[in-house]
Amino acid sequence: MDKNLNITKTSYPRIVIIGGGFAGVALAKKLSKQEVQVVLLDKNNYHTFQPLLYQVSTGGLEPDSIAYPIRKILKDFPNFYFRMAVVEEIDTDKNKVKTNIGNLKFDYLVVASGSTTNFFGNSEIEKHSMAMKTIPQSLNLRSLILENFEEALLTSDLNERNALMNFVIVGGGPTGVELAGALAEIKKGILPKDYPDLDTRSAQIHIVQSGDCILKGMSGKASAKAEDFLEKLGVNIWKNVRVTSYDGKTVTTNTDLTFETATLVWAAGVKGATIKGLDAEEFVTRGNRLLVNQFNQVKGFRHIFAIGDIACMVSDAFPHGFPMMAQPAIQQGDQLGENILKFIEQKPMKAFVYKDKGAMATIGRNKAVVDLQHYKFQGVFAWYVWMFVHLFFLIGFRNRMVVFVNWVYNYVRFDREARLIIRPFKKRLKK
Amino acid sequence: MDKNLNITKTSYPRIVIIGGGFAGVALAKKLSKQEVQVVLLDKNNYHTFQPLLYQVSTGGLEPDSIAYPIRKILKDFPNFYFRMAVVEEIDTDKNKVKTNIGNLKFDYLVVASGSTTNFFGNSEIEKHSMAMKTIPQSLNLRSLILENFEEALLTSDLNERNALMNFVIVGGGPTGVELAGALAEIKKGILPKDYPDLDTRSAQIHIVQSGDCILKGMSGKASAKAEDFLEKLGVNIWKNVRVTSYDGKTVTTNTDLTFETATLVWAAGVKGATIKGLDAEEFVTRGNRLLVNQFNQVKGFRHIFAIGDIACMVSDAFPHGFPMMAQPAIQQGDQLGENILKFIEQKPMKAFVYKDKGAMATIGRNKAVVDLQHYKFQGVFAWYVWMFVHLFFLIGFRNRMVVFVNWVYNYVRFDREARLIIRPFKKRLKK
Repeated sequence: MDKNLNITKTSYPRIVIIGGGFAGVALAKKLSKQEVQVVLLDKNNYHTFQPLLYQVSTGGLEPDSIAYPIRKILKDFPNFYFRMAVVEEIDTDKNKVKTNIGNLKFDYLVVASGSTTNFFGNSEIEKHSMAMKTIPQSLNLRSLILENFEEALLTSDLNERNALMNFVIVGGGPTGVELAGALAEIKKGILPKDYPDLDTRSAQIHIVQSGDCILKGMSGKASAKAEDFLEKLGVNIWKNVRVTSYDGKTVTTNTDLTFETATLVWAAGVKGATIKGLDAEEFVTRGNRLLVNQFNQVKGFRHIFAIGDIACMVSDAFPHGFPMMAQPAIQQGDQLGENILKFIEQKPMKAFVYKDKGAMATIGRNKAVVDLQHYKFQGVFAWYVWMFVHLFFLIGFRNRMVVFVNWVYNYVRFDREARLIIRPFKKRLKK
Repeated sequence: MDKNLNITKTSYPRIVIIGGGFAGVALAKKLSKQEVQVVLLDKNNYHTFQPLLYQVSTGGLEPDSIAYPIRKILKDFPNFYFRMAVVEEIDTDKNKVKTNIGNLKFDYLVVASGSTTNFFGNSEIEKHSMAMKTIPQSLNLRSLILENFEEALLTSDLNERNALMNFVIVGGGPTGVELAGALAEIKKGILPKDYPDLDTRSAQIHIVQSGDCILKGMSGKASAKAEDFLEKLGVNIWKNVRVTSYDGKTVTTNTDLTFETATLVWAAGVKGATIKGLDAEEFVTRGNRLLVNQFNQVKGFRHIFAIGDIACMVSDAFPHGFPMMAQPAIQQGDQLGENILKFIEQKPMKAFVYKDKGAMATIGRNKAVVDLQHYKFQGVFAWYVWMFVHLFFLIGFRNRMVVFVNWVYNYVRFDREARLIIRPFKKRLKK
């Protein structure tokens, strides 16, 4: 393989975008018909709709319906290049990115590399727990859950059997809450039918939350109602408890509380996915994010920008940066598309103003919580709103249709049919 | 893990079925409300609809829509047990199967283990080529094809680039023909848009066929028309040529012909998936299949049966056994369901008579060939018939809906959106 990416430099300035998530794709769309050369780099050839990963893990959706080929997004854009590459280093002196497939010079660089799971330095937990930030990770979790139930059938040891059927989810944010709700529904509706020869009632679902409430980014009303919904579904919520270790069997916490489980899902936090060479202390801030000004320029640079989860733009309302969610990413991508063109033309850029469209989370069938700026509501209507919004933000008509078909089917039939162990997780570990 | 499968023996006779393919599932359904204990063993927790695997490999369908959870098929059947297990040996003296999760006694055994790819002993080809008999294999092929195109972009070496874009398919049966047709459509409709910076016109698709026609199990008319369709799509068909070696780069044949390709798909044949302990020469016949009588009893046994691909039932019309396809499997499963109950009640069993419902293959958009017993037709109507029949035989309403949505979308938009590299194939090899 060549040591370059085989992209001919033209007279247009070259903008390199690292990452095809919400931010990178929003930016690319804005640059689609402009006099710039755009190179989008991503380690995958698809965009992932992360908010629905938990439905992949729980068999409610197939992975392919929340992934979308990046090349298809870009296909009608002239002067666009996609390369599937892992960016290994950024050379800010020579304006060059180093990737696993070669090096590339840039005139302008936009880091939209997103975030990764934050294990807060606990490598034992990292080794034994499951994360849910990518499609392969979500599929691994799907396999593991199903493999554990198949295995639970085979043991006469009650403790072992229960450990195989228990779930501990660390983190009471949207991911943890949505996953717990889905698991509770599976426990109620699917397991007794699928495993008639197993007493699945003893399966326990725990959320362990270090703070004093779940969904802490949302309103008190949403948090309380979500807790209520989860408890009705039989989920145990442990607040003000911090998980301290997990050896693949026993979860210990900073209290007397311990759990025996074969499945620990780590949804306790994310951190910016910084890249070597652009990770100096002066601009890497809380949560491993890159400090940017109101034009998304990384502190100390004029031609290097950061948008989305990786960017930390401090404002009065958000002293630690915007929440690491889709909305700030999309809005920043959109706006940078305009700003970067202005910057090239040496016109003044427009300061970014975040339009907080609110937050939402679904707990289960007819159960969701929605916080809009002036209106907060919970229950059936919130659930419909949640579904509509998620369908709307999914990329691609086919994906929307397939997700819609699945949701209608799952709703009418109380079912989740993608409970498939396509690639076993445990066996692979053993190899 | 225990060394047994944790299934309590009841007063009912126990029937162990090895394999949840077309034959095993048809049999299970027939036994659903009878006074027998049924244990179904399969290495996967899902049934695979093999006829559509090539659409998974070519991004037209998501894998989850052609897989169906076996537990869901069995969920309303009393006295049914499913265990996800690999059967390693059959002890015909002690009436016992040995699996990777423990041993199990049987009163009656039905081998429905299907078939695997037949490399005819050529381990070099086995190592470097791609097979397409399982969902993971089909996904590997999907990844490899897309990875090769991403790589083709990076090289300036014309020969290397062409090798990455060429496909050689060995075998002109339905699998080879359908895959070649799908690849030809991708080359025409998708590659130029996805890879504007690559001259994808030079991508070549070859079918290498050892016999003197493709689709040799079908009528001369079907074969000729399929060949015509493929040639119009730009597929090169090489007849009377046998592939002799492949080192991952160069394909050699028994003639002067060689091909340079990074993708060799081996669809040249299948063989019965025999199991140790039930593989004596006296009943293992041509194609590694188990010789059975007209009641599907394996030669020399009264209580051990074989159905589907693994069974070779010789008749005047089919001196080498029935074709290894879904129809004989389903019909044998159905009939054995009745026969085995008769056998248990010591009533005479009914000899199996195969009802040949014909054969069909699709080449592409509006292009299929259908052979019914009294009516053979090709073209648009055949294509609709092909789709209808495949939708009909798919298990599960959700799967049918999702496949239907995909097909309508693909047809209207000339597209295949599941072109996703979810689990890279090459990188894994390197690890």
